Amino acid sequence: MDLTADQRAEIDGLRAERRETRRVVAPALEEILYEPIAVLDHGFVRVIDYMGDDGAIVQAARVSYGKGTRQARDDAGLINYLMRHRHTTPFEMCEIKYHVKLPIFVARQWIRHRTANVNEYSARYSILDREYYVPAPDQLGTQSRSNRQGRGAVLEGDEAAHVLALLREDAERCYGHYQEMLNEDDQGDPLDPDRVGLARELARMNLTLNTYTQWYWKIDLHNLLHFLSLRADRHAQYEIRVYADVMLDTLRRWVPATFDAFMNYRMGGATLSAKALDVVRALAAGARPTQEDSGLSKREWRELMEVLDRPEA
Amino acid sequence: MDLTADQRAEIDGLRAERRETRRVVAPALEEILYEPIAVLDHGFVRVIDYMGDDGAIVQAARVSYGKGTRQARDDAGLINYLMRHRHTTPFEMCEIKYHVKLPIFVARQWIRHRTANVNEYSARYSILDREYYVPAPDQLGTQSRSNRQGRGAVLEGDEAAHVLALLREDAERCYGHYQEMLNEDDQGDPLDPDRVGLARELARMNLTLNTYTQWYWKIDLHNLLHFLSLRADRHAQYEIRVYADVMLDTLRRWVPATFDAFMNYRMGGATLSAKALDVVRALAAGARPTQEDSGLSKREWRELMEVLDRPEA
Amino acid sequence: MDLTADQRAEIDGLRAERRETRRVVAPALEEILYEPIAVLDHGFVRVIDYMGDDGAIVQAARVSYGKGTRQARDDAGLINYLMRHRHTTPFEMCEIKYHVKLPIFVARQWIRHRTANVNEYSARYSILDREYYVPAPDQLGTQSRSNRQGRGAVLEGDEAAHVLALLREDAERCYGHYQEMLNEDDQGDPLDPDRVGLARELARMNLTLNTYTQWYWKIDLHNLLHFLSLRADRHAQYEIRVYADVMLDTLRRWVPATFDAFMNYRMGGATLSAKALDVVRALAAGARPTQEDSGLSKREWRELMEVLDRPEA
Amino acid sequence: MDLTADQRAEIDGLRAERRETRRVVAPALEEILYEPIAVLDHGFVRVIDYMGDDGAIVQAARVSYGKGTRQARDDAGLINYLMRHRHTTPFEMCEIKYHVKLPIFVARQWIRHRTANVNEYSARYSILDREYYVPAPDQLGTQSRSNRQGRGAVLEGDEAAHVLALLREDAERCYGHYQEMLNEDDQGDPLDPDRVGLARELARMNLTLNTYTQWYWKIDLHNLLHFLSLRADRHAQYEIRVYADVMLDTLRRWVPATFDAFMNYRMGGATLSAKALDVVRALAAGARPTQEDSGLSKREWRELMEVLDRPEA
Repeated sequence: MDLTADQRAEIDGLRAERRETRRVVAPALEEILYEPIAVLDHGFVRVIDYMGDDGAIVQAARVSYGKGTRQARDDAGLINYLMRHRHTTPFEMCEIKYHVKLPIFVARQWIRHRTANVNEYSARYSILDREYYVPAPDQLGTQSRSNRQGRGAVLEGDEAAHVLALLREDAERCYGHYQEMLNEDDQGDPLDPDRVGLARELARMNLTLNTYTQWYWKIDLHNLLHFLSLRADRHAQYEIRVYADVMLDTLRRWVPATFDAFMNYRMGGATLSAKALDVVRALAAGARPTQEDSGLSKREWRELMEVLDRPEA
Repeated sequence: MDLTADQRAEIDGLRAERRETRRVVAPALEEILYEPIAVLDHGFVRVIDYMGDDGAIVQAARVSYGKGTRQARDDAGLINYLMRHRHTTPFEMCEIKYHVKLPIFVARQWIRHRTANVNEYSARYSILDREYYVPAPDQLGTQSRSNRQGRGAVLEGDEAAHVLALLREDAERCYGHYQEMLNEDDQGDPLDPDRVGLARELARMNLTLNTYTQWYWKIDLHNLLHFLSLRADRHAQYEIRVYADVMLDTLRRWVPATFDAFMNYRMGGATLSAKALDVVRALAAGARPTQEDSGLSKREWRELMEVLDRPEA
Repeated sequence: MDLTADQRAEIDGLRAERRETRRVVAPALEEILYEPIAVLDHGFVRVIDYMGDDGAIVQAARVSYGKGTRQARDDAGLINYLMRHRHTTPFEMCEIKYHVKLPIFVARQWIRHRTANVNEYSARYSILDREYYVPAPDQLGTQSRSNRQGRGAVLEGDEAAHVLALLREDAERCYGHYQEMLNEDDQGDPLDPDRVGLARELARMNLTLNTYTQWYWKIDLHNLLHFLSLRADRHAQYEIRVYADVMLDTLRRWVPATFDAFMNYRMGGATLSAKALDVVRALAAGARPTQEDSGLSKREWRELMEVLDRPEA
Repeated sequence: MDLTADQRAEIDGLRAERRETRRVVAPALEEILYEPIAVLDHGFVRVIDYMGDDGAIVQAARVSYGKGTRQARDDAGLINYLMRHRHTTPFEMCEIKYHVKLPIFVARQWIRHRTANVNEYSARYSILDREYYVPAPDQLGTQSRSNRQGRGAVLEGDEAAHVLALLREDAERCYGHYQEMLNEDDQGDPLDPDRVGLARELARMNLTLNTYTQWYWKIDLHNLLHFLSLRADRHAQYEIRVYADVMLDTLRRWVPATFDAFMNYRMGGATLSAKALDVVRALAAGARPTQEDSGLSKREWRELMEVLDRPEA
């Protein structure tokens, strides 16, 4: 993450101001407000604004004239209940807004979550920075043989070095030609004063998909939890998971009771099919069901045994 | 609007607290935060929370590290531009949450706006109050003869008194029977200790559609403007328009530059069809086009002449 | 369900026509197309149109130039996979449109599903029929003592008769006054030719919440499954569950492989929390965990034991 | 557009089948069903499925038991009325599904329309084809001097040739390195049998933004009209506008009355602000208002005079 002096000063300016409000406040989230949290080699997540706290969920669930309940303990109990029974509308009553810098190929996954509000930096209107993602060496996974959309062992030695060199050189060359077509240097001055550059909306097509973009992204708490349950999951691509992990931490600061309920009922939980429940019932009754008799496919059986910590089965 | 002493105390409790925040604050909206604004005979609108201000729109449009622009005047200019060209995503970056008490038949129109978050008071779980809407005498419009979904002249004298009596008696009787079926009095005590009441989820079906309900309703600024453009319009039913009018005033307190742009470009503007534009062009050129030659229907012609302040044409 | 002769003739007219299409067709659904299926005392569900079949899900998942897979068996396998891993977007590629007649208090629950398209019969514009829901005697549940939003034992004898009489009389009287205020009889003729009736948009407020309304309701398959998982659930109110049950049957006719996957992975499945999974793992390993040590609340423990068919535990 | 023999055969297979249905059919759309319509150098639009026709809009607006109206002429009249008064829900009752092949930078604009259902070809799971967009020479617009997100004069001669060469070489080189990192040739065989390739989800980041992707995209008619009103507009970027133009033609085939209403009331219409209406009223009354007195900015004045065909003013 590389902030210019101007950007750092703008952020410091925002952080220095204090105002009085009648609204509810989440103190642990206020601490990090506006501050960029580094992700990947040049990316970041910044919390820009938020609405509500754990109490606001309870307040809405009760359609209350005042606050939620009398005691924080009771708020947590109700939040657990709401999370367990998938009463989702009270969680929609909280909202959070992030500023995120991320590679374009990550942005393309991320944007598929349609329930958020988004303002992306426009490469029709402005010029993108010379910043592109190159994986850290320990992230150069090979194509998984068992999972068509996953990674296997990590590349090493010359192979790794070759891949990193290709990624760097291609991104660098494409960005250089982008500037050349635009006829602009890093300062925004014309490279050649006698030439008019190609339109920005065209030149951008020469950039590689690891180029960084940025956006303001705003979402309600219910839909944020859904996003995190998919993107902080171990099957998510590493390059988006690291963003979700950072956002999980902002969740903990913002709505700690909701965070606890989410980790227990969603992130740490599992959904079992009717046939899988039959297997579990048999096991609990002391029987020894087999994959063949269960009606589960081999893959389903293996996944169930992993959930049950019975990998040998 | 009839608050109990407990409700009043809860609201006063919320209003008395002040907290420090790094977030942007809308001072004129803070003044009325939590305070119910009366609408119709027993309804209200309360602003419960909000996120962002005029500057936040500009900040998002620029995907900025700091605030919007340097000067409020520039913010207003950009907001006008965004409103005029229907660049709607920056307006989605602000959010507001209301607590609303309203008759069920109004709630049924309102809920058709699907882009909001809603938590309604549950009549499966709780018991509705003995409160129902009866129109003020000057609102007892007859069925319009020209507009199948509008009102004409106002009923007067005995006819008006008769309608008001019917509305009152039916609502009152239905509510009384609702309590009888529930076996509960106004204090929530059993009317007959030897009897178990009908389930709440069933008894509620006996209530009339003018019974009041209430909900928490949260929406982003773009979708709020869309709601207001339809519901504060003179063709909207009076009983929802009065809510929209009150909310227009909260809009002015919250985001004054957006309010001005909205009144100029949306509420006070008009959309003309291709054929209507041909008529306008001819008029502006000094010609005297006629309905017959215009391709407009008689109704469209009349509506266009009204927009142009040429009712005689 | 009471169709007029005109309505019956209109439906028969639609059913009699056959056209040629290149689109995929779901034969078992075509059989019942347009035909009302009775629900409650005056309600119905009609399938009006649909788009896609099981193969269309596979086709979209593969972004295919042709059909889904070569064999229906392979389609089912992929559909199971998609359902299990919550890959929801391919299911959004199918769409269905219903015409539904239902009591207003049911419509108010139903409309909370915001992802559907809806056109409701307008009581601002038209006059509602004299039709209202009265429960069958075996559905007159008392308020549950254990579940604040559920039903307990059924009312019997005089109490039941009294409730039914109240519901009938109040609905009948309110409807009668609705007509009187409108100044219209059942044929739409003026009751009193010298009087102008109250506006329809006002008179409707006198109706009770068990009055029937109707709408066209269109939804994609993914969101339909979500609707059914909530509304065909045994915790759903009976009066909406009977609609969901009928729609489950239309689902089976339309997309049989998806229906099977849905019943196994969603309707018959269960989501267990992290703490509940710990209990299940211990049971499977032959241990005898207790509620006290589990970290589960008593209620959660009881619900888990029910899922595991161990009610005695 | 370059179909393989297999793709062509799959499409021909779909087109050859005819089935019987009770659903409404749009004959002119059936003619082109499944057939790719070429857009740009390698892209296409294919209509895969649809639901409803003009009559279905009327049927839903009336919540009808049978068809729309008796006569197509009456359907068109009602559709004009609905379009003029922005009664949008009946248009949501029709649905269409496309298969689209398009450059990634176009897909990134397109996906911002969140109300559609999308299944994109996965470059985590599969390998993208060696296809990238290079503008035709007459589309090599320079950066506009008056509009920061538009194009000005077209590049010519050596400059144009140089830009085209850069775009081609960079896309070609990046694709070559993509294959090298994947260790796969054009036939999907390993380039080097002793090497395991980089994970697909990583290698894809080396591709340029003009690489083609494809997706299934499904949307209701109301939201399609909104999409077209923005993307077939002359201010839209050429590379997305050509897709919208092709889709306008599919709209005309599908729902001709809606198409006509859309062209008159939306595409050919204009929204005027309150202040602009004052100017129009003055002009229509024979006055000669000036920009200075109008309250309009110079830019707004110029845009209004363009709408009124008074460029000299």
